Amino acid sequence: MDAGESVNKMNESPRIITLTTDFGTSDAYVGTMKGVILGINPSVQVVDLTHAIPPQDIYEAAFTIHSAYRYFPRGTIHTVVVDPGVGSDRQAMVCEIDGAFFVCPDNGVLGYLLQDIDGSAESRINVVAIENPAYCLPEVSNTFHGRDIFAPVAAHLSCGVPLADIGSPVKNLVHLPIPIPEISGNTITGQIVKIDRFGNAITNISASALVGEASGYEINVQGTRLTRLNRTYAESAVGEPLAIIGSSGLLEIAINGSSAEKQLGLKRGDAAVIRKVHKSCQKI
Amino acid sequence: MDAGESVNKMNESPRIITLTTDFGTSDAYVGTMKGVILGINPSVQVVDLTHAIPPQDIYEAAFTIHSAYRYFPRGTIHTVVVDPGVGSDRQAMVCEIDGAFFVCPDNGVLGYLLQDIDGSAESRINVVAIENPAYCLPEVSNTFHGRDIFAPVAAHLSCGVPLADIGSPVKNLVHLPIPIPEISGNTITGQIVKIDRFGNAITNISASALVGEASGYEINVQGTRLTRLNRTYAESAVGEPLAIIGSSGLLEIAINGSSAEKQLGLKRGDAAVIRKVHKSCQKI
Amino acid sequence: MDAGESVNKMNESPRIITLTTDFGTSDAYVGTMKGVILGINPSVQVVDLTHAIPPQDIYEAAFTIHSAYRYFPRGTIHTVVVDPGVGSDRQAMVCEIDGAFFVCPDNGVLGYLLQDIDGSAESRINVVAIENPAYCLPEVSNTFHGRDIFAPVAAHLSCGVPLADIGSPVKNLVHLPIPIPEISGNTITGQIVKIDRFGNAITNISASALVGEASGYEINVQGTRLTRLNRTYAESAVGEPLAIIGSSGLLEIAINGSSAEKQLGLKRGDAAVIRKVHKSCQKI
Repeated sequence: MDAGESVNKMNESPRIITLTTDFGTSDAYVGTMKGVILGINPSVQVVDLTHAIPPQDIYEAAFTIHSAYRYFPRGTIHTVVVDPGVGSDRQAMVCEIDGAFFVCPDNGVLGYLLQDIDGSAESRINVVAIENPAYCLPEVSNTFHGRDIFAPVAAHLSCGVPLADIGSPVKNLVHLPIPIPEISGNTITGQIVKIDRFGNAITNISASALVGEASGYEINVQGTRLTRLNRTYAESAVGEPLAIIGSSGLLEIAINGSSAEKQLGLKRGDAAVIRKVHKSCQKI
Repeated sequence: MDAGESVNKMNESPRIITLTTDFGTSDAYVGTMKGVILGINPSVQVVDLTHAIPPQDIYEAAFTIHSAYRYFPRGTIHTVVVDPGVGSDRQAMVCEIDGAFFVCPDNGVLGYLLQDIDGSAESRINVVAIENPAYCLPEVSNTFHGRDIFAPVAAHLSCGVPLADIGSPVKNLVHLPIPIPEISGNTITGQIVKIDRFGNAITNISASALVGEASGYEINVQGTRLTRLNRTYAESAVGEPLAIIGSSGLLEIAINGSSAEKQLGLKRGDAAVIRKVHKSCQKI
Repeated sequence: MDAGESVNKMNESPRIITLTTDFGTSDAYVGTMKGVILGINPSVQVVDLTHAIPPQDIYEAAFTIHSAYRYFPRGTIHTVVVDPGVGSDRQAMVCEIDGAFFVCPDNGVLGYLLQDIDGSAESRINVVAIENPAYCLPEVSNTFHGRDIFAPVAAHLSCGVPLADIGSPVKNLVHLPIPIPEISGNTITGQIVKIDRFGNAITNISASALVGEASGYEINVQGTRLTRLNRTYAESAVGEPLAIIGSSGLLEIAINGSSAEKQLGLKRGDAAVIRKVHKSCQKI
């Protein structure tokens, strides 16, 4: 990771702060964070990404923020609070990557994001520890840093506070082992990394891994065998399992009008194997 | 439907965009749409109507937007994305009705709304197909038009883009058959069209159908017989089934302090029969 | 309660209106309230505290607004609509306490808040009945005062309307009996007053009740015995029950990485007994 120079500054338009947590929405925890934020910057736009991350599920948080952040304008501040180590000595940090800001614990929640960065020579990344108490609430609890640290730091960032004022640079971030598909000849072995609300099973196999000279595909997921890639859900009959490149550019297993999760018994971590088939040997 | 002239234009106050989807809130799909919207119009007010439409349930979406849109100020842009045909050749459209804008697939989600319009001589309606790629994201997926088409079009509309710039007029919209109560003498036979969070069963029988010379009512729903119309929930004892004109002006079956859905076993589509009783023959 | 002078007035920053209801988010009830609010004040910031209060659960609403309101800036307007008596003769009111505003039915939803005030000599409280129809919707239903009364009154308040214009002073508010811990010698007997999304069981025993000369604690909750107060969740092994002062300053029973509610079978109303132990007699 190469350190660059922060680009945080005020501009005319309202800034955006997003929130991703495992707090749920049945308590007032999220609303309380918004009160803290708006008390510091009354004009900021606060956007919920989701608060339904399963409690303490760092992988799900890492997948979520990675899939969403690129659709927000430059300068957006993403607050990610999935924080099993709250109150312990795990580091709280601000991470700036290519003009996007992330306020979160250093526990792997940026894992998918940093994986992208590692392979990119021109990416600029700045990370500072949250050290300056002037940007936190006067009293910091041991159990709710979302309210006492992450929300106020995000709000102060949205007012243009420079990273250097928040704390000193952090060099080595906690590493989250991200499952990477294995490629062997014509076969790609990946896994399901996310089940969405529709019961679609999203794999870690990207569209770019599938381009090439193949004339067809054979996909195997937990005993279900699919022999083509759909272009749309509606191409398949209702109730029929299908494979498609989803909106994140990843291969997903779905069922038109139903839940692949329930109907095929899929879950995160299940293997997904895709074999490129050449015309001469394609058997359907 | 008579075509009128669009009234879309900028004014001083922030515009409002509402979102109604079946995306749920456990994934970041909705938050991603908001990122796209705020990237185009940073000052817009984005309001969630609901994201808990059952997956692909066009009737529920149609009921929801119809019951809510009239409480928003003129010029509000309502984005309705319940879209089983995403990626197929179903048309995406912008519909302007009496100063309200609707951005949605042409699949019936405006069914309840258009039913109102059909009976109204003075209503002004403009419909255009979404054709101009300048108002969509540069890359349009086949699976997430909420993000790639509907959100950016809504945002551009909120900036004052005229409908004529978005696409050419659409003449015939997809028709959603809306269940209409049957009236026969003193008897109205309707059905339950919506169960709400409290387990209240909302019928399609409107208050206006009940005015008149009746001195009493007899209501039958799935074996439950009620002999009067409540003015408030609290008029009935806790646990007692009741009938009342609800907040949408429709007859609903409820239980004070409990769920009529669970306690009476009601569901959408169940018949609701109401008989106007005249004093001479009223038997209670 | 001493009546003071209202401080409501416009200022330059956008005002905040919070919403706490039992409406859920699967229907458009909450979105409709926001439409009404933004139609009156297009620049206000609307924040959801929660809409998942169990239907008609006044205690849960009272706990929620009490724990959250102090994190919002001065002048924030909190709308609390948990309202079993909607349409009956229960009073609708606006309550101003130390520069925060509460728009709600007079049914106890401010119970925890008013308990604080009662003990505070310098607190300023103003309460008026909602009487002026100019600040409500033109048509007021009997079933949805959130939309027809509370939302528009909150919005007009956010525009600077003085309390005296809304209605005449209210003297005696409905009293909600709040469970208060009993202290007897070294023993404090409280109860669980809230289970949160993580399954943490929050008691009504405050941190301030625990300060003093004790060298240790013995905590008993439904057969589970704990012999120390954690500083962080992470101090305990995963799966181990623990006691900690939570983010509201109240003693809570939790399990690191799991749900105390499920694993220990806890529920609201369960007794929680804490005994201060002095070194000479401490047995661990």
